[in-house]
Amino acid sequence: MKARVYVTLRKSIADPQGNAIKNALGKLGYTNVEEVRIGKLIELDLGDITGDEADRQLVKMCEGLLANTVIEEFEYEIDQR
Amino acid sequence: MKARVYVTLRKSIADPQGNAIKNALGKLGYTNVEEVRIGKLIELDLGDITGDEADRQLVKMCEGLLANTVIEEFEYEIDQR
Repeated sequence: MKARVYVTLRKSIADPQGNAIKNALGKLGYTNVEEVRIGKLIELDLGDITGDEADRQLVKMCEGLLANTVIEEFEYEIDQR
Repeated sequence: MKARVYVTLRKSIADPQGNAIKNALGKLGYTNVEEVRIGKLIELDLGDITGDEADRQLVKMCEGLLANTVIEEFEYEIDQR
């Protein structure tokens, strides 16, 4: 069972790395870019477990290790194939 | 026009950060986890441009700034709303 976890900064948290990339894109001519936010993409192979078990594990993994829920939000997708 | 860019390490490139997370998850009891790979998620607000223009810009942004195509691959999704 494979899954993808997306960890993003909460809207209220400043993202200096995203701002730096926005500025760099502006200097390259992409002056239409209004906002850039940087997050983490975590791809996991969860081995041979059920979809329900994957769901349960992913929430706990995110809350316990993968995301800092004080400043970050997470979502995930399970690849059911 | 909003878009999400996913930048991942090429399969042939070792991912020590992913391995560290795999080991940490194992110690937390998630011994079923077989692989963890870490990538970047970049959320962009491209302002008022067409979908075709967004497509064109995103490929160039990724090749020129957002991804290091020697060791990374990218994909993107455009939110047509």
